[in-house]
Amino acid sequence: METTLKILVVEAERERARDITEALVDGGWANVTVMESSVGLARAIVDADPDIVLIDISHPDRDTLEQLSIASDARSRPVAMFVDRTDADLSQAAIGAGLSAYVVDGLQKNRIKPVLQTAIARFNMMVKMQSELDAAKRALVDRKTIDRAKGLLMQARGVTEEEAYSLLRKAAMDQGRKVIDVAQALVTSADLLR
Amino acid sequence: METTLKILVVEAERERARDITEALVDGGWANVTVMESSVGLARAIVDADPDIVLIDISHPDRDTLEQLSIASDARSRPVAMFVDRTDADLSQAAIGAGLSAYVVDGLQKNRIKPVLQTAIARFNMMVKMQSELDAAKRALVDRKTIDRAKGLLMQARGVTEEEAYSLLRKAAMDQGRKVIDVAQALVTSADLLR
Repeated sequence: METTLKILVVEAERERARDITEALVDGGWANVTVMESSVGLARAIVDADPDIVLIDISHPDRDTLEQLSIASDARSRPVAMFVDRTDADLSQAAIGAGLSAYVVDGLQKNRIKPVLQTAIARFNMMVKMQSELDAAKRALVDRKTIDRAKGLLMQARGVTEEEAYSLLRKAAMDQGRKVIDVAQALVTSADLLR
Repeated sequence: METTLKILVVEAERERARDITEALVDGGWANVTVMESSVGLARAIVDADPDIVLIDISHPDRDTLEQLSIASDARSRPVAMFVDRTDADLSQAAIGAGLSAYVVDGLQKNRIKPVLQTAIARFNMMVKMQSELDAAKRALVDRKTIDRAKGLLMQARGVTEEEAYSLLRKAAMDQGRKVIDVAQALVTSADLLR
């Protein structure tokens, strides 16, 4: 599995690019593509669809950090950034931009693979937390929608809350849909028709 | 603000401990306490209540990682761990244990402060995500509780849903409490009395 990981390296200096590639190949990660410039990164990401992005940049500033994290789609895959120097504000911007690893003065060959492994673990953890958060928010929105649909039915058909829910459930079963979808359709119609 | 940060360093080797302390003091972080062993760490944490914990450990294993992250209370404050070597499983365990930084072969003096700054940013981000998640889950639970309380009132007093909610709201205002607290009290009583 590891050997098939596709890694995109953004590195302006040829020698460093060779070192990084060597370190990755030595570590069993042979599927490496190198870009010399971050110009066109967003397009390259779409084309190559890499599993990990490694960006080496000597002197970052806030704007560059944010652009790079957007271009590399740091919410969709682990992006590790190596910089030569930083400060508290830049570090915060880097983490806030969703980078899975932000490494200062640490581009030594023996560290590259462990950094990427940690970046993968960090990325997976963030994805898990984010999806739990999305699910919790969706559950609340769904409940509100179902409550509104029940209220509409109670009013329109003079039924109790339980009866309203039974009607929603029956309609969902008859149509092979989910209760939330039927409820959403009802709420949408009510909004349109009033 | 930064200068008042209390940093607890866990470092067995005296020379490295001195280097770390020097690096921190040079970086303007003078409030440093060093422990030579991680034995009694949990107690030391409670006593010292540090803002950041820095742990240096040559050869980590999964159990040690987990114990250290529990003892250092990695969910309550940034904990940065420096190790000499790792592998994919250990990296994953380290991230899963909630460490804010997990750094391989990177304990050079010039890197310590940037690593801790990044760890702080990472920790704050995790806290923010976790509190959003907690809030979303609580909102859903609260809504269910309020719905159940409304249902109890509708049944017991033969009122509509809106009237039931008005009753809850009035009781809350009269008692200077929140609607959710009144609803919770009602649900608890109903469970006790039935």
